[in-house]
Amino acid sequence: MARQVKIGLPKGSLQESTFDLFRRAGFDIRLSSRSYFPAIDDPELEAVMFRAQEMSRYVADGVLDAGITGYDWIVENGSDVVEICELAYSKATSNPARWVLAVPNEASVNRAEDLAGGIVATELVNVTKKYFADKGVDVKVEFSWGATEVKARLVNAIVELTETGTSLRANNLRIIDTIVTSTTRFFANRQAWQDKFKREKMENISILLNAAIEARSKVGLKMNIRKDGLDAILKILPAEKSPTVSALADPDFVAIEVIIDDKIERSLVPNLKRAGASGVITYPLNKVIH
Amino acid sequence: MARQVKIGLPKGSLQESTFDLFRRAGFDIRLSSRSYFPAIDDPELEAVMFRAQEMSRYVADGVLDAGITGYDWIVENGSDVVEICELAYSKATSNPARWVLAVPNEASVNRAEDLAGGIVATELVNVTKKYFADKGVDVKVEFSWGATEVKARLVNAIVELTETGTSLRANNLRIIDTIVTSTTRFFANRQAWQDKFKREKMENISILLNAAIEARSKVGLKMNIRKDGLDAILKILPAEKSPTVSALADPDFVAIEVIIDDKIERSLVPNLKRAGASGVITYPLNKVIH
Amino acid sequence: MARQVKIGLPKGSLQESTFDLFRRAGFDIRLSSRSYFPAIDDPELEAVMFRAQEMSRYVADGVLDAGITGYDWIVENGSDVVEICELAYSKATSNPARWVLAVPNEASVNRAEDLAGGIVATELVNVTKKYFADKGVDVKVEFSWGATEVKARLVNAIVELTETGTSLRANNLRIIDTIVTSTTRFFANRQAWQDKFKREKMENISILLNAAIEARSKVGLKMNIRKDGLDAILKILPAEKSPTVSALADPDFVAIEVIIDDKIERSLVPNLKRAGASGVITYPLNKVIH
Amino acid sequence: MARQVKIGLPKGSLQESTFDLFRRAGFDIRLSSRSYFPAIDDPELEAVMFRAQEMSRYVADGVLDAGITGYDWIVENGSDVVEICELAYSKATSNPARWVLAVPNEASVNRAEDLAGGIVATELVNVTKKYFADKGVDVKVEFSWGATEVKARLVNAIVELTETGTSLRANNLRIIDTIVTSTTRFFANRQAWQDKFKREKMENISILLNAAIEARSKVGLKMNIRKDGLDAILKILPAEKSPTVSALADPDFVAIEVIIDDKIERSLVPNLKRAGASGVITYPLNKVIH
Amino acid sequence: MARQVKIGLPKGSLQESTFDLFRRAGFDIRLSSRSYFPAIDDPELEAVMFRAQEMSRYVADGVLDAGITGYDWIVENGSDVVEICELAYSKATSNPARWVLAVPNEASVNRAEDLAGGIVATELVNVTKKYFADKGVDVKVEFSWGATEVKARLVNAIVELTETGTSLRANNLRIIDTIVTSTTRFFANRQAWQDKFKREKMENISILLNAAIEARSKVGLKMNIRKDGLDAILKILPAEKSPTVSALADPDFVAIEVIIDDKIERSLVPNLKRAGASGVITYPLNKVIH
Amino acid sequence: MARQVKIGLPKGSLQESTFDLFRRAGFDIRLSSRSYFPAIDDPELEAVMFRAQEMSRYVADGVLDAGITGYDWIVENGSDVVEICELAYSKATSNPARWVLAVPNEASVNRAEDLAGGIVATELVNVTKKYFADKGVDVKVEFSWGATEVKARLVNAIVELTETGTSLRANNLRIIDTIVTSTTRFFANRQAWQDKFKREKMENISILLNAAIEARSKVGLKMNIRKDGLDAILKILPAEKSPTVSALADPDFVAIEVIIDDKIERSLVPNLKRAGASGVITYPLNKVIH
Repeated sequence: MARQVKIGLPKGSLQESTFDLFRRAGFDIRLSSRSYFPAIDDPELEAVMFRAQEMSRYVADGVLDAGITGYDWIVENGSDVVEICELAYSKATSNPARWVLAVPNEASVNRAEDLAGGIVATELVNVTKKYFADKGVDVKVEFSWGATEVKARLVNAIVELTETGTSLRANNLRIIDTIVTSTTRFFANRQAWQDKFKREKMENISILLNAAIEARSKVGLKMNIRKDGLDAILKILPAEKSPTVSALADPDFVAIEVIIDDKIERSLVPNLKRAGASGVITYPLNKVIH
Repeated sequence: MARQVKIGLPKGSLQESTFDLFRRAGFDIRLSSRSYFPAIDDPELEAVMFRAQEMSRYVADGVLDAGITGYDWIVENGSDVVEICELAYSKATSNPARWVLAVPNEASVNRAEDLAGGIVATELVNVTKKYFADKGVDVKVEFSWGATEVKARLVNAIVELTETGTSLRANNLRIIDTIVTSTTRFFANRQAWQDKFKREKMENISILLNAAIEARSKVGLKMNIRKDGLDAILKILPAEKSPTVSALADPDFVAIEVIIDDKIERSLVPNLKRAGASGVITYPLNKVIH
Repeated sequence: MARQVKIGLPKGSLQESTFDLFRRAGFDIRLSSRSYFPAIDDPELEAVMFRAQEMSRYVADGVLDAGITGYDWIVENGSDVVEICELAYSKATSNPARWVLAVPNEASVNRAEDLAGGIVATELVNVTKKYFADKGVDVKVEFSWGATEVKARLVNAIVELTETGTSLRANNLRIIDTIVTSTTRFFANRQAWQDKFKREKMENISILLNAAIEARSKVGLKMNIRKDGLDAILKILPAEKSPTVSALADPDFVAIEVIIDDKIERSLVPNLKRAGASGVITYPLNKVIH
Repeated sequence: MARQVKIGLPKGSLQESTFDLFRRAGFDIRLSSRSYFPAIDDPELEAVMFRAQEMSRYVADGVLDAGITGYDWIVENGSDVVEICELAYSKATSNPARWVLAVPNEASVNRAEDLAGGIVATELVNVTKKYFADKGVDVKVEFSWGATEVKARLVNAIVELTETGTSLRANNLRIIDTIVTSTTRFFANRQAWQDKFKREKMENISILLNAAIEARSKVGLKMNIRKDGLDAILKILPAEKSPTVSALADPDFVAIEVIIDDKIERSLVPNLKRAGASGVITYPLNKVIH
Repeated sequence: MARQVKIGLPKGSLQESTFDLFRRAGFDIRLSSRSYFPAIDDPELEAVMFRAQEMSRYVADGVLDAGITGYDWIVENGSDVVEICELAYSKATSNPARWVLAVPNEASVNRAEDLAGGIVATELVNVTKKYFADKGVDVKVEFSWGATEVKARLVNAIVELTETGTSLRANNLRIIDTIVTSTTRFFANRQAWQDKFKREKMENISILLNAAIEARSKVGLKMNIRKDGLDAILKILPAEKSPTVSALADPDFVAIEVIIDDKIERSLVPNLKRAGASGVITYPLNKVIH
Repeated sequence: MARQVKIGLPKGSLQESTFDLFRRAGFDIRLSSRSYFPAIDDPELEAVMFRAQEMSRYVADGVLDAGITGYDWIVENGSDVVEICELAYSKATSNPARWVLAVPNEASVNRAEDLAGGIVATELVNVTKKYFADKGVDVKVEFSWGATEVKARLVNAIVELTETGTSLRANNLRIIDTIVTSTTRFFANRQAWQDKFKREKMENISILLNAAIEARSKVGLKMNIRKDGLDAILKILPAEKSPTVSALADPDFVAIEVIIDDKIERSLVPNLKRAGASGVITYPLNKVIH
């Protein structure tokens, strides 16, 4: 039987995007509805679902060789693990997730210090306790099992995760400080990282996942062009990447192909059209390696 | 504005049965789909939803006057609260819920002591740590965020909640000890319990909830009978409760009415039928007070 | 074939409670998942589902003999129909539904007059137009197809339905006036109301529905009591209804039975218990006719 | 351990109503979401879920002591079992379920004989084959795994289950004959029926289920009345059942109580109201035994 | 802060395909479950969800700069807006959506004129009134809030939207005329269209959306071929587009690449295979600009 | 009207993947929620949904020209049809589906012969009967309508479908023999296969479906490389396929393009990165024809 790397995947809000990422990275991965052990078409890999909150504990203990979870929970658990790479999943917003200290809009609280003697509800108990201890502010930090925003008016303040602040605003809460920012990490158990087979396998996974992440924000662009119009088109194309110019059977024409960022595509495509280009196509990519 | 008692109701597995119980107790209680503040038609009562796991912390802190949750979570949180009464919701099984220490069937572990040096996964971390400390057994207890049974083969043992053991058997796990048994409790904050208004309100709620619980396992039974057949019927009826015998317009007949346990009804009804009774009816009850 | 009354039932938010009401009134009524024609076990009755918004138009036109919908939509459609009775379905809150004029909290608008020249979005276009015309205020009233609260910041004001104001507050809106209040009505086509058979049938339905509504907020209460304790108990019981006192076989005791409001039950039951009563039961009612 | 009767309950369309019936009969029965073994609070009873289609095979084989399924499937399987009683679950329509031979409206087929040489699709293959064999008509009968109505235009005719004919009409099909009518049956294995313990247990279940079925279409009705108005009221009440007239403390009044059919209630209640009665109540029943 | 174009996107049946179209056009657009304001990764664009029925009113009023909805609702609302382009979303059928006048199969109505004095139910009230007024036919047009087909037998005729006629046939209705045909349109407010920034932004969106629509029905096709077989293959390829023939390192071979319609692909691929081609691949496209 | 091939598609577990396959093959196919007749954008094709279990019967009868279902059900039904091709849908596991004879782990049964005189439950009744008849073992084979694994402890053994054995292990069952293995087949009615038009149409479909299946496990890979580094890269690329090397405008570089298996991509991409390659991209394919 093949040697294996045992990897923990996050159950919950990151689950679908993680599975999608592995699929785009080239793995066929499937999870039947009540199972916690996804089937994956790589005999060297065994996957198990864990909640983001508990993942790093089991990697640190050696129950898993590697895991994917947020930086916030690694710190909360105080887990001694090796970070392999950051994984930039989401492109909806450029803001990383933040755990913020928030109070009701109408509260007369403006700084952490104003909460002395009060109660703070949060799911991130240890990080929050350390934050207040570092400031020398005495508060009671109580564990909150979900729906923390609802508790903001029952206690004195909350520490809650936010990306865009939408949910906090909807609850009429005001952010007064950021406790910690967090992005998704791929990380390893210390012993596993010293094992040559496991380390190479984990590095390969890291390369494939990042190549798939990179490809998602890029497209391939092709067009054929008369040689005498080439310069005009090259001025419109983004400068940093030199396009592949290939010879065609008709010597008056060349084919141009270039990989561009999909945000540039949005302005480039209308401009190419305005510049009289035709026969322009863009196509999707699976992986991009710089 | 009326004085109020602020009561925490359990979100999650007990939610529906708790709402049902309050309704049968006479309260019109409604929760819109994403709210945590049920509307309740009693101006002296304000309800808030909390998870069973966190409830007792907020009662102890005085954020709530009273709450309903399991004995297990009161102990896990080490909360200093006043127990008002036990609430015997469920009649499916007569077994209280138990947190048990379980290992894979195939493991060579027979006692807690055999786990020394191992890892135990559980949601009930503090109670579990105390259990092993009391026995002087050194184990690492790791928090498990749901799906604990799945982890039994990843670590050495789990401590998990069970009523009938079905789920443990389905996962091929074997129980080796019971850590704690638990039933649902209605409990109060210490200060609130000293407040005359709040205490009487909480006692009233206790009486109504228990009267509704009692009624659910009882039915009213009525029949008319010839006076000369009365003795025969009385022998079939359960002895502990004397039936109400009322006069009818026809002096040869009497009406009999009695409140019986619905489990007795199952054998009694066929027997009354076999004894030739007719015109027997049973009807549902809302509340029963002894 | 039997003569029939064709009745429109409201599809949508009132659907489930209307079906429940008819069932408690004694009709077996069922609607298969994609049908608009409920099966009803009364050959003299044919039911059809219509939206609350359109119901009164089809009753006025004679497509239906009778219908159930809100007063608001009868007025909006300007339908000439005969009101048979009000139906007081809901007991969650004592507030009738209101259509209110609302603006963003931060807007400098305090009266309808401040909206002159602006745009008002609402589903209740005609009633709103008349409201502003009566005040001589010139506004453009635009139809809003749902999610009206979301439009409050896109236009100048909205006219929206509210019971408790919760949803308006959640959207940070402020009520500046009430346009119309509304309750549910059972109403008839003018010609149908002149038809002897149809009128009697509709009156019977009215009696049954109201008896079922009445029963939902009442319970029956029974207890046996020594004759010498009767006066003490009678003082605790609500005064307006004299209880049925019936003779028992044992001449020292009497049975007491009384119908009470379920809100009184909540305080009465604990008081009876405190007054030493035992063997007290309450039971549910299907119909109550004064 | 107690002796047990092993009973099969129908999974699928009858499941919810069967569970509801057992609950009203006095059994607390629960089925967790993916289990086939309902928990039931009677140590003498073990329940297993089977599909209606296969139930009688396993009762005949002795895998089960008793089962509940339709008469149609007992005949289709040719199972040699003992019928204990019919169970009249549904009161929506008075029509029993029928398996009918149906063809497209536009087909030139009017009798079974017109189908000679054709193909008939049905889930009830054996009964259908026998039907055509008895008539000496040669057709190919093909098994249809659901959605049989859709196949009517692909083959020549179908044999399909219908209660009201709604679904057939919606598919533009025309009924040309009835193959078999069916109602739900409670039936036993031949050996089990000879076992004294099992037979008595099955008879008890039969009594309880039928008492619960009977109670569902009945209500209790009570009113107090002056003795001099008694005759007028008695004329309105249904004649077949003599009401219980009981003495009250006030000698001028009597209390009347009677069990009536809920379909009679619909016309009786308005008539009592018109006859000037007040203080009339009706209440629900759990069981009624004649 | 960037200048912005405020665009209305259709909530309801077109919602998913519109979001999909924007994504393929290069926008990352997301809508959280109860929001009406999609997040979009373009600071110059703000999107709001409106129902198709009300969209054009808010564009005409200037609440929105641009919107996407059906031509039918622009006409129904009589909105004075600028059409930017048609958007040919759907390729399931080549039929545009039509609002048709339909009657029960069995009705003796064959022309609009036969409905004089009758009632017509429709969601498209104004267009329908104009249709009958133009013909001089006097009918009462009543608003229908969904499920219009069900009303066809309650009133005299309906005017309802249909693409394939399936739903009308399923309700046994017969089309007697077409009132209006409709396709999806991208349109602008008159003032916004005069604003240079907004107009260019809206034109860019128009180019991107149409390039994405075009790409969905095209694929790229590649193969390598010996120079001496080139003519045979070129005869099989569709004539209208000349393929890109590029030089390979091996001088005896050329690479052929061509963009073809995916409906041609269905017959072309089997033919290339039959013509002995191998190494043929097709690949998906994101955008195609002629 | 065009001539048509009538094809049966499998309803149920294969439904989604079959629709997905047809879409990737170039057909726009849609099924509205309760329909059995998918709309397909090819006038020469008519599709109907059938259950896998019944499909081959209707193809053999000529109700359908062709169908897609498992080999197991063709054999179970004993249908005389022409196999066109195997369709290798799933790539999750390399194991074909197997119908296996399974018994409880604790049973003392090791061979089919040990079951003599017992009862075997299965959905595949005929194949199972033949299996035991061939071995001369006398068992009663009973039809099982789903949930067969649950019956293993009620009867003596089951014959059930399994891919990975997971579900059998979860039910504590042990496999003692394989009855039949099965993969998905595309097959035709004998008469239809002799019809020139229909046969060519079915062959085209076969080519397109298989080209789409092939493409799903392949990706296109491109990179530009200095001519002097070409040999090193060619050694890393899989040997069996010679890459397309095309000339670029810059004579020192060439472009390399090759189609590779997506499982090779997983190891190749990290190796290319380690070998210093940059500008490597992979892109998805729609169809691949060898």
